[in-house]
Amino acid sequence: MRDVVCLAHDLPPDGPDSLDDLPGAGRLDLCCRVVTSGLLTSHAVREDAAVHLVVQDEFTVRFDGRSVRHLRPDERSTAARIRDALDAKSGAIGHQEAEPSPGVAVGRFGLAATLSRLDGPLLHCHEAGTPLAEEPVPEDPTFVLSDHRDFTDAEAALLADRADSRVSVGPERLHADQTVTVAHNWLDTDGYRSY
Amino acid sequence: MRDVVCLAHDLPPDGPDSLDDLPGAGRLDLCCRVVTSGLLTSHAVREDAAVHLVVQDEFTVRFDGRSVRHLRPDERSTAARIRDALDAKSGAIGHQEAEPSPGVAVGRFGLAATLSRLDGPLLHCHEAGTPLAEEPVPEDPTFVLSDHRDFTDAEAALLADRADSRVSVGPERLHADQTVTVAHNWLDTDGYRSY
Repeated sequence: MRDVVCLAHDLPPDGPDSLDDLPGAGRLDLCCRVVTSGLLTSHAVREDAAVHLVVQDEFTVRFDGRSVRHLRPDERSTAARIRDALDAKSGAIGHQEAEPSPGVAVGRFGLAATLSRLDGPLLHCHEAGTPLAEEPVPEDPTFVLSDHRDFTDAEAALLADRADSRVSVGPERLHADQTVTVAHNWLDTDGYRSY
Repeated sequence: MRDVVCLAHDLPPDGPDSLDDLPGAGRLDLCCRVVTSGLLTSHAVREDAAVHLVVQDEFTVRFDGRSVRHLRPDERSTAARIRDALDAKSGAIGHQEAEPSPGVAVGRFGLAATLSRLDGPLLHCHEAGTPLAEEPVPEDPTFVLSDHRDFTDAEAALLADRADSRVSVGPERLHADQTVTVAHNWLDTDGYRSY
């Protein structure tokens, strides 16, 4: 599996008030695009991938490409799926997630607990990291990235402790979903060697 | 300049009826994402880039990174900009575009005329093309790609005649905006050599 963990610092755990202003709902638009870039290609789902949105270090909404159904590429429909997941969070108890629809789950996990549930090498996406093209192509990696905000000191410390490497996707600071697209493309092409 | 030309086969020239169903408006959601991936990075505009949406081979909506203002990354706000451009199309006469807001213009051009207005090497994004990583990194390229539909026979014939090369971005068929992100990253890194 390829796992993408995105820190949603501003997304309200109670979800958006409206689907008409996704940027105003703690940058829910950005979270939707990360789900789309993480799981969808043209007319297909990446069945070897999952996206984990860590909401204010309190809850994690998980989209699993193996089982998710009816995921569409536009922001608004994905926002409704995230809203529905957050609406179901009272059903998440202890380590047990609630799963309001197949392949969409919500758990009472922050970043540390979410990372503990994942195997495979952990790659911290960071502008000061190793060039992606110089990094060995891993099996079953987890990419961790932040939304429009920088990593907090606590997140940076946790990742410094747990990450196997820090990787840079290029000289430009990209949006989170753009970073995910570049990471997938790197893996898809086996490090830009197989097209 | 980096130019991105995206064929919007289904987008109605009269624009969307509503901003609440962008996929239903001829995949306006997809067009918005192409504008975003073509012009925005994290907290910045790509001032060396422009995006041209060729609407049913009849009109072209152009977003110019050198002069566009207040472009935001979410689909809905970008959809409103595209709607406003299409609303202004009666002001486009002959070769003269209408420019309803700085950096956003609409002209009575189809694909052939849009390509004729652009200099620089023309790269046709196609799954059967040369691997991007094997292609020399061009100066001031134009990338041409299609929306959720394949190129029509007429478009394919035009591109076979005019394109300098056909390039593949990888073994997966990506969304149009994902393809643009990969293309930008390839250029940003000078062919995956400079991070």
